[in-house]
Amino acid sequence: MVRSLGKHLIAEFYNCNNEILDNVEKVEYYMKKAAIETGATIVTSTFHRFLPHGVSGAVIVSESHLAIHTWPEFGYASIDLYTCGDDVDPWKAFEYLKKAFNSNRTEVNEHKRGLYNEIGIPENSSHKVEVE
Amino acid sequence: MVRSLGKHLIAEFYNCNNEILDNVEKVEYYMKKAAIETGATIVTSTFHRFLPHGVSGAVIVSESHLAIHTWPEFGYASIDLYTCGDDVDPWKAFEYLKKAFNSNRTEVNEHKRGLYNEIGIPENSSHKVEVE
Repeated sequence: MVRSLGKHLIAEFYNCNNEILDNVEKVEYYMKKAAIETGATIVTSTFHRFLPHGVSGAVIVSESHLAIHTWPEFGYASIDLYTCGDDVDPWKAFEYLKKAFNSNRTEVNEHKRGLYNEIGIPENSSHKVEVE
Repeated sequence: MVRSLGKHLIAEFYNCNNEILDNVEKVEYYMKKAAIETGATIVTSTFHRFLPHGVSGAVIVSESHLAIHTWPEFGYASIDLYTCGDDVDPWKAFEYLKKAFNSNRTEVNEHKRGLYNEIGIPENSSHKVEVE
């Protein structure tokens, strides 16, 4: 098995609820809840509503980040779910958000980030690499 | 040509300057400069330094976002450079950061985000889709 520091889901959500995608409070709430669903710890976050429409934001977690950009006029949201470590699962955020945004069609690419062999971490290290 | 709302570079930076990767002020400064290099407009940002080491942060731009997670102990940074529209170029941020972090080895995957034909935007629309 190729080991990596993190897993990054690059997700496209189609046919979402337009009203939710244009509501910055709701988008922020759902993104934070999604972060918690993965098992991650929220560190900081920032969200913004654009004029005439659309929301962008990111939640930094100890285990990496979740980010979103919405195009409510198309019912489309571009979502990144990136977590590090064995104790968290970005797919839980994916399933949660699919329901929260009421999307009936999604597309996901999963990337491994920070491959141990590329960075030079021994493959048999424990996942939480301890450094003196 | 397959048209999309945005371009997302998923980049791995190896053998970076460890000291810079552990300095939250410098990382934030370089990430914001990188955002400006692309031609984007910064909307909001958030950065955090972890103990004992490492920095995470995101810069939200009108044209999407830039995000970073650093592992100074390995000289490794995981960087996302995601921009929307024809007027901005995420590769400019990539080139800028490669120099700023003094990385001698990188790996990049470019993703198209928000394909017009998947969302249902006519292929011949102007890139900045105008909606009433």
